[in-house]
Amino acid sequence: MSGMKGVKALLFDVFGTVVDWRGTVRRELRVFGRNHPEYDTIDWDDFAEQWRKGYLKATRETAAGKRPFQVVDEMHMERLKEILPQYKCAGFWTEEQLHNLNQVWHRLEPYPDAQLGMRLLNSNYLTCTLSNGNVRLLIDLVRHGNLAFDQVFSGEMFNSYKPNPATYLGACKYLMLQPHEVAMVAAHHSDLTAAKSFGLRTVYIDRGFPEDNINWDKLDDYGFDVVVKIGDTAKPQDGGFVEAAKRVGIAADTTVKSWRI
Amino acid sequence: MSGMKGVKALLFDVFGTVVDWRGTVRRELRVFGRNHPEYDTIDWDDFAEQWRKGYLKATRETAAGKRPFQVVDEMHMERLKEILPQYKCAGFWTEEQLHNLNQVWHRLEPYPDAQLGMRLLNSNYLTCTLSNGNVRLLIDLVRHGNLAFDQVFSGEMFNSYKPNPATYLGACKYLMLQPHEVAMVAAHHSDLTAAKSFGLRTVYIDRGFPEDNINWDKLDDYGFDVVVKIGDTAKPQDGGFVEAAKRVGIAADTTVKSWRI
Repeated sequence: MSGMKGVKALLFDVFGTVVDWRGTVRRELRVFGRNHPEYDTIDWDDFAEQWRKGYLKATRETAAGKRPFQVVDEMHMERLKEILPQYKCAGFWTEEQLHNLNQVWHRLEPYPDAQLGMRLLNSNYLTCTLSNGNVRLLIDLVRHGNLAFDQVFSGEMFNSYKPNPATYLGACKYLMLQPHEVAMVAAHHSDLTAAKSFGLRTVYIDRGFPEDNINWDKLDDYGFDVVVKIGDTAKPQDGGFVEAAKRVGIAADTTVKSWRI
Repeated sequence: MSGMKGVKALLFDVFGTVVDWRGTVRRELRVFGRNHPEYDTIDWDDFAEQWRKGYLKATRETAAGKRPFQVVDEMHMERLKEILPQYKCAGFWTEEQLHNLNQVWHRLEPYPDAQLGMRLLNSNYLTCTLSNGNVRLLIDLVRHGNLAFDQVFSGEMFNSYKPNPATYLGACKYLMLQPHEVAMVAAHHSDLTAAKSFGLRTVYIDRGFPEDNINWDKLDDYGFDVVVKIGDTAKPQDGGFVEAAKRVGIAADTTVKSWRI
């Protein structure tokens, strides 16, 4: 944990680290399916994965300078319209219904440890998002999840996406901190590996992502400063950010002041 | 109040609207003076005004495109060093002490209605700062004052200062709202007049500023949507933002959820 000495701020990846996008998007799609039996043959879990993949591809191309900047809401909508015919449900939704469906990315549910964990970490660090989600989307997620962030930083503010260094170093500059005084918190080793290469510290929160293909046998090679694995605690609500707070020396009974409606 | 119909977000000026810069800066300077009787002839209230004036001049020149962008912390420091000889106290402070003194702008105290008023307004609106203060300064003020903002917007994010339209319209764009869906909240009629000219709604909070020279007899001519005057309530803590919340129909006993350390 010596790697966290001198750290004054934490930057959080959001999709899949703070909020469980799979859980929420799959649930909304399944509820839709149940209410429309004519679509009951669709594999909604696969639909959710395909929807998300379009966003990943687009943000990575933008980060590499191969695609002009576009906000994530627009990317999600374009990708949604692209995959509807593949699942044979084009023409079913009106434009307004598609908009409402696309807004699911603004109401994703936090992981069970996120609310308390954020409160605890916020008692000792400046806490900010650093996400590819657009500003308004992130504000909506923070409010929806009642999450103790001090500030939203978004790729939208840097006209690029992670893993472009403009995002990590731009957030450090706004915080008036050196990269080594800031830690990136994420469930994606690619995000952390990029942050580390630009001088930031790293906190890996295992959320069991299949796409991450982390090699647990070679975990030491990644050199992350803090690693919290699924199964490190008996209950999910004690893991993730709550366990991370414990590991950096924040007492679990830290008093929570109230201020927010 | 019909002017507030359809408003979804509030942008708050900070210096002199949310936090009482005069009160805090004067107090710190006076405490310094008391501890250093050799400086007891200095008019610290005047010192505070002169310090602040340099910032106002510099931000206005930047807003008009006549000066390159520079963060407010740097402007405050340059101005401080500029006026020290005028008050015959140059050379007294070390660089580190000057830095600590300059940080007073990061620990300004909120007005007595600000904490509760922000909580109430936050229950019904997205609430963001829109200040010329730099991002880190604003994050520090929000934490110091325990203020229920959703997000900090700063001139630093738009590479300009109010009253340049890039700031007001840039914040609306990040919020994905039209200007008429956003209200500017400020104690400075010049700030509100600018916001209004770009299509935003306006909430004037009287903090008794001498530099504002508002003509109360011609108040209707300004056309602000909500005006809260000093003296509208018996106690200061019921005025300002708390009274503004009441005027837009938010019940004073709105439940306050707790999440923040």
